[in-house]
Amino acid sequence: MENFADLDFAKLDLSREERTGFPEVVFCSGKEDQFLLSIYERLYMEHQEVFGTRASQAQYELVKSRFAEANYDPVSGILKITKNEDKKLIGNIAVCTAGTADIPVAEEAAQTAEFFGSKVNRVYDVGVAGIHRLLSRVDTIREANVVIAVAGMEGALPSVIGGLVKVPVIAVPTSVGYGASFEGLSALLTMINSCANGISVVNIDNGYGAGYIATQINRLASGVVC
Amino acid sequence: MENFADLDFAKLDLSREERTGFPEVVFCSGKEDQFLLSIYERLYMEHQEVFGTRASQAQYELVKSRFAEANYDPVSGILKITKNEDKKLIGNIAVCTAGTADIPVAEEAAQTAEFFGSKVNRVYDVGVAGIHRLLSRVDTIREANVVIAVAGMEGALPSVIGGLVKVPVIAVPTSVGYGASFEGLSALLTMINSCANGISVVNIDNGYGAGYIATQINRLASGVVC
Amino acid sequence: MENFADLDFAKLDLSREERTGFPEVVFCSGKEDQFLLSIYERLYMEHQEVFGTRASQAQYELVKSRFAEANYDPVSGILKITKNEDKKLIGNIAVCTAGTADIPVAEEAAQTAEFFGSKVNRVYDVGVAGIHRLLSRVDTIREANVVIAVAGMEGALPSVIGGLVKVPVIAVPTSVGYGASFEGLSALLTMINSCANGISVVNIDNGYGAGYIATQINRLASGVVC
Amino acid sequence: MENFADLDFAKLDLSREERTGFPEVVFCSGKEDQFLLSIYERLYMEHQEVFGTRASQAQYELVKSRFAEANYDPVSGILKITKNEDKKLIGNIAVCTAGTADIPVAEEAAQTAEFFGSKVNRVYDVGVAGIHRLLSRVDTIREANVVIAVAGMEGALPSVIGGLVKVPVIAVPTSVGYGASFEGLSALLTMINSCANGISVVNIDNGYGAGYIATQINRLASGVVC
Amino acid sequence: MENFADLDFAKLDLSREERTGFPEVVFCSGKEDQFLLSIYERLYMEHQEVFGTRASQAQYELVKSRFAEANYDPVSGILKITKNEDKKLIGNIAVCTAGTADIPVAEEAAQTAEFFGSKVNRVYDVGVAGIHRLLSRVDTIREANVVIAVAGMEGALPSVIGGLVKVPVIAVPTSVGYGASFEGLSALLTMINSCANGISVVNIDNGYGAGYIATQINRLASGVVC
Amino acid sequence: MENFADLDFAKLDLSREERTGFPEVVFCSGKEDQFLLSIYERLYMEHQEVFGTRASQAQYELVKSRFAEANYDPVSGILKITKNEDKKLIGNIAVCTAGTADIPVAEEAAQTAEFFGSKVNRVYDVGVAGIHRLLSRVDTIREANVVIAVAGMEGALPSVIGGLVKVPVIAVPTSVGYGASFEGLSALLTMINSCANGISVVNIDNGYGAGYIATQINRLASGVVC
Amino acid sequence: MENFADLDFAKLDLSREERTGFPEVVFCSGKEDQFLLSIYERLYMEHQEVFGTRASQAQYELVKSRFAEANYDPVSGILKITKNEDKKLIGNIAVCTAGTADIPVAEEAAQTAEFFGSKVNRVYDVGVAGIHRLLSRVDTIREANVVIAVAGMEGALPSVIGGLVKVPVIAVPTSVGYGASFEGLSALLTMINSCANGISVVNIDNGYGAGYIATQINRLASGVVC
Amino acid sequence: MENFADLDFAKLDLSREERTGFPEVVFCSGKEDQFLLSIYERLYMEHQEVFGTRASQAQYELVKSRFAEANYDPVSGILKITKNEDKKLIGNIAVCTAGTADIPVAEEAAQTAEFFGSKVNRVYDVGVAGIHRLLSRVDTIREANVVIAVAGMEGALPSVIGGLVKVPVIAVPTSVGYGASFEGLSALLTMINSCANGISVVNIDNGYGAGYIATQINRLASGVVC
Repeated sequence: MENFADLDFAKLDLSREERTGFPEVVFCSGKEDQFLLSIYERLYMEHQEVFGTRASQAQYELVKSRFAEANYDPVSGILKITKNEDKKLIGNIAVCTAGTADIPVAEEAAQTAEFFGSKVNRVYDVGVAGIHRLLSRVDTIREANVVIAVAGMEGALPSVIGGLVKVPVIAVPTSVGYGASFEGLSALLTMINSCANGISVVNIDNGYGAGYIATQINRLASGVVC
Repeated sequence: MENFADLDFAKLDLSREERTGFPEVVFCSGKEDQFLLSIYERLYMEHQEVFGTRASQAQYELVKSRFAEANYDPVSGILKITKNEDKKLIGNIAVCTAGTADIPVAEEAAQTAEFFGSKVNRVYDVGVAGIHRLLSRVDTIREANVVIAVAGMEGALPSVIGGLVKVPVIAVPTSVGYGASFEGLSALLTMINSCANGISVVNIDNGYGAGYIATQINRLASGVVC
Repeated sequence: MENFADLDFAKLDLSREERTGFPEVVFCSGKEDQFLLSIYERLYMEHQEVFGTRASQAQYELVKSRFAEANYDPVSGILKITKNEDKKLIGNIAVCTAGTADIPVAEEAAQTAEFFGSKVNRVYDVGVAGIHRLLSRVDTIREANVVIAVAGMEGALPSVIGGLVKVPVIAVPTSVGYGASFEGLSALLTMINSCANGISVVNIDNGYGAGYIATQINRLASGVVC
Repeated sequence: MENFADLDFAKLDLSREERTGFPEVVFCSGKEDQFLLSIYERLYMEHQEVFGTRASQAQYELVKSRFAEANYDPVSGILKITKNEDKKLIGNIAVCTAGTADIPVAEEAAQTAEFFGSKVNRVYDVGVAGIHRLLSRVDTIREANVVIAVAGMEGALPSVIGGLVKVPVIAVPTSVGYGASFEGLSALLTMINSCANGISVVNIDNGYGAGYIATQINRLASGVVC
Repeated sequence: MENFADLDFAKLDLSREERTGFPEVVFCSGKEDQFLLSIYERLYMEHQEVFGTRASQAQYELVKSRFAEANYDPVSGILKITKNEDKKLIGNIAVCTAGTADIPVAEEAAQTAEFFGSKVNRVYDVGVAGIHRLLSRVDTIREANVVIAVAGMEGALPSVIGGLVKVPVIAVPTSVGYGASFEGLSALLTMINSCANGISVVNIDNGYGAGYIATQINRLASGVVC
Repeated sequence: MENFADLDFAKLDLSREERTGFPEVVFCSGKEDQFLLSIYERLYMEHQEVFGTRASQAQYELVKSRFAEANYDPVSGILKITKNEDKKLIGNIAVCTAGTADIPVAEEAAQTAEFFGSKVNRVYDVGVAGIHRLLSRVDTIREANVVIAVAGMEGALPSVIGGLVKVPVIAVPTSVGYGASFEGLSALLTMINSCANGISVVNIDNGYGAGYIATQINRLASGVVC
Repeated sequence: MENFADLDFAKLDLSREERTGFPEVVFCSGKEDQFLLSIYERLYMEHQEVFGTRASQAQYELVKSRFAEANYDPVSGILKITKNEDKKLIGNIAVCTAGTADIPVAEEAAQTAEFFGSKVNRVYDVGVAGIHRLLSRVDTIREANVVIAVAGMEGALPSVIGGLVKVPVIAVPTSVGYGASFEGLSALLTMINSCANGISVVNIDNGYGAGYIATQINRLASGVVC
Repeated sequence: MENFADLDFAKLDLSREERTGFPEVVFCSGKEDQFLLSIYERLYMEHQEVFGTRASQAQYELVKSRFAEANYDPVSGILKITKNEDKKLIGNIAVCTAGTADIPVAEEAAQTAEFFGSKVNRVYDVGVAGIHRLLSRVDTIREANVVIAVAGMEGALPSVIGGLVKVPVIAVPTSVGYGASFEGLSALLTMINSCANGISVVNIDNGYGAGYIATQINRLASGVVC
């Protein structure tokens, strides 16, 4: 196994962009240092940019020692190397959260969507227990091509938003909560059982997945072909 | 066991009213015919009225054959014998439902509260996926001393109501739904995890329990001592 | 409760179409006869068409006795009254199933999408245990604006499709299976945990929800504003 | 996200007191230092007092460095700044625990109720496995307007109390226990299934929620309008 | 498989009595008619008595048509053929239930213990929500060598009894309840987590198992060697 | 709360020995230092001996600093102070384990039983996957008045022993295992579902509880009255 | 959907035999009459024999009305049409059950293996609670190339067999049991957690799957190439 | 307990090799230092080689200090002492993984099989979300006598492989994933519910078990008798 870190075993999916319209992304959490670095190097060679999620501060420092231009956001855990140019952002995705504790997941979603070329509007801390906060932002939300609704605890936000908009709502349960929240399972069940229409659900804390799907929809709505 | 139906084994709790302020009530579901009849007879002798929940049409016919004044509501399943007099109702309890399928449980709650002497306002079919329906009824809900919020599927109604009122909200999950609603478990988890304050939860479909607690609170708020 | 069936309690959401772009739909399962009929009448008056899901043969006969033009599909359980005119269908939605037992749910999805104006391509019985069946249909699937992937048992179909297309995949777990399939829970978990991107999930057997979301996306992709 | 800590994203709910009768409270656990400090500052400016739950010793020292009058109870984890005046406490809430390990949650409940103006009687370590301990305190418990019953492991305390009193019992399952207690889930299920009347349940370890609801009821019983 | 019913496949464990001190017993539920009859015949030949549990009325009539002396108790579902002689009962087992709905399981336990030669005292309907009912019977319970405590719903009875006696308590959860009782799972968890000492638990509704163990203990306490 | 550690809140159950035949025992895990010390002091004053379970090395050193005669077994975590005299042990309890990893729980059971005056035979590492190991020890096991069977992973040991002996088997599931052992839940379910007779179950890792019950039975079998 | 039954949607996998070495098999349960008949016809045309599992008596009569040579075993639910010739059976598979109630699943396994050409030895009713029954058959079991171990309730049989043989054991949990057996889930968990080596597990009641895998192994052991 | 580490309690199963064809193996995780060393010493004396799984770096250093020839692979956690000679490897086992994060479990399987004398082909990172990666390796996989398929998250790999090969597939769920993967439970359920034939499942992360079974099958296929 001495070559483990040299990508012998990892089959970087370099044709992925052609097949799916999106380049390969790195899930940093739990990756060994040398292996992580190798992946960043190989992807950088290929695309001149790399996008990683769930990175730790230590992983940031590791990658930065090799790529000075690496950029890290401690809130979302996104560790990326981007080209030195302004990306033109298209369309409109609304990213909403129920509380402030849901923001890390929301930022993973929002920054993923932005990296993939979508314009994002953030509408944070509009949970249903203070429904006026949400209602005061409805106009902003209604401008979007697709809404990402991020919530932990009882996870009721997507249901209320789903009844207010014409576009799909991607629901993201978070592991925020305690006791019978069971690390996000309760929020996941709430969202899967939503009586509102137009709601589909991704894994607990899967901000990346939500940002990806929202971008797919946003591209379709914007007439972009990848 | 030949005397099984004659109440040898069942210890009717005739001092319960003194101890708890409420007479004994009959959970009809699953009770053998002869046993059910015996309980109605014994309680009627004691109180001149009997209140039963979860009764079937057949049980109604059985009891009616013995007590012509027996009254049955097929929606809630309540089978009762009441004194021929107008009960003075006190205070104000709001009973809300998310959908129409939740009404049987809500009626069990409402009619329980009415039997125990509470005034009830019904606010049905105001689920969060069409939030304007709820908002248009907020003033009515705010007049109550206590709110009962009944919901199945994702069970988000109590969270929204909890953020709008100053009084306790008794949340009742219902077994309404399919798939991952798991017969009401999902709604129960939603309600237990509510990020709104003032919400406590009873068992799935337990309309009776909610009506009982709401009456306790309504009595306290009305200065009634039992 | 004597007015229960007359819609006093049910608040038909007649402004829903304006708000969400879709008219109200009837979930027939479990509804009392008189209540069901009232809803069909009221919605027919409003829209001159009614779309109901999860209807039984008996409910079909009930509705047909009042609306001779009522149409019922026993496979999907859809009971609808439609205007006597050809609907122009737009865009392209692919509806795929893993097995033949998943077809009822798939048809609920497909016919929902068609009722809402979407063109649908059916790609049935292409489960991953015979991967060549799916691969031989990839070109058809890739033409869609959005894919609905319906599967029970281990529910692996969406993961494979997700890796082959550029557009969103709506995953629908079904209750098909036995033993540790736990009525669809296993398939639901598989889909929520998919390692493929672009996959979001709806409730077990929720073909209607998938057809609704797919139509939202298909409309966005087709430049249709509702 | 560099302004994350400056409350740009957190929408402090300053009208909450008017709407619900209670000021906003801080859930300290997991909050970043700078963000926590900002919230304490903003709420202090508004109300001249702040009440926080689930605070660590380190968070106490942080807040104390800014507000010398900050007060911390390591048992309950409550970190508060209060006005230098005697609060008049009204009514009567009984807070009971099954064991000594449940006291931290009970104190969260009791001190919450006291902060919100309720008089509290503590009746600790009266679990049902030594029923005489509870029976010897029944008179004290019966004087309350509402009872909070806190228990882990099998969580049977609320059922026994519920049969002894006329007022509502707020049941709080705790994560005390091991093995099949599943971090409080078993106690939660016990309480939700109670055969006693008058019992409603809050989340595992949610002493704050119980103190809040008990205060709502205690206010109603005391004729206090907020 | 045409010989399926002739005991070719079933290996009647005729040495069981010598090995364990108890003869083989028949679990009737679900057994095919011919197969059931064969087992009764073979065991009758061997022991001149047969004891069966979970029998239906129809199975009783089947067995009675062959053995006129067969005896059936519809409450417990016990279907037995006994020798025409008075059995000397030894020791003392207390069988307690929380409610009347738990009596079928309790009778399975009590009659099993009696068949195996134990004297039984029944103490029924003494659930913890009316604790005075239990306390008034404590002296009777304390006379036993072992206590069987049968309860559904929240299942708290064994915990209270465990704190009152010096002898082992066999806890039997029942499937009595609804909603979050999950067919007895909640009661099972309650009993497994009991904070009282001396409590061990058998399967949901397993009255037979409890009667068996109680007899083992009662025999030991009575100095009986089998 | 400044008096928390001084036993104001903990109601030491000093009459427990009279009521149940066993003195109070200390569950050390998680107890604050000062509080633990106070309990040891008070119980020592009362009984001149103290028995504690689930103690850490640090707690041992704490108690030893106050009671030089304190004795600690790191395998079982038992921390006790005993009278300087030889205890006469009665009867016979067999304590069996499936593997070596189950020994800590088995020792908690064995040493508990010994402290309470029972003679114990240890039969360790006789799991069913090497059935000859168990069979070679059957004679020893059959001499006992009661058997404690300790097992993790699939927890099958009690079923096999139950079929070989005439006396009760107390089954103790352990949290030994990984993956789908779910911290002992799988072993617990195995034991609760045992097809062997005479098996009752205690909580996961609850060696103390098993030792307590076994002692109750052993006393009954030995004719000891407490 | 009018062509639903004509196999338009079902893609019979006629190349399966070449690809996997086994012809397609019919899972009869839940299939519509006309659809079932069509599949039997098409497969018969192709292979001159058809093998179906989980068939009802009614389905048997349906198929028999078309194929007089259809053969049905009510114990296993296997409904097959076979060529009128003696099949040469190879190798040796031992099929064991814990109890008699497990025989239907065992027969599904055994007859599947026989249909696919394997010689089968049945060793039924050798559950671990009477371990001597199993030990007396060990020599027979040891002659097999692979063992199928079928058990419900606590499912311990595979663990004991696994420790006695040199060949793979295919464990089949059954839904036999009640209460906490959770329809076979407990047996499944037991088998997955087995401390014996050489055990792998299939779905609850999946006799067919076990017979299939056992045949694969038996063929490999017999040097048969398909 | 002072002799705990000296193997008094652990009954090393030295006849295991004769009985099962495999020597005893050490599960290192959680074993005390002295105890681990004793086992390695005793097994080394017996067999002149020792194979341990789930070892930590610290355990490696411990064993190395006693056996300089000890060899450790940090990826799989295997810590072994082998004879200084080339082992002749027989047959062909394919070990496949879905992702790179599954490699540690796959290596545990592969190296176990190699230690037991099997030839292994590694086919890593061929998950179903990029199905072409798997298809390009099908020829290699088809050469094997048995396939081990290792996958976390949704665990769909075995289903696809099962449909492509003629030989048994041992499915190994891994705890790779987050959120609703529930530490491997979701992958386990997926695999148990596979609609492909020929798939049986071992415990989560149980690479050793898979390597063991695969070797059993590989030996049978290679005509090796142990």
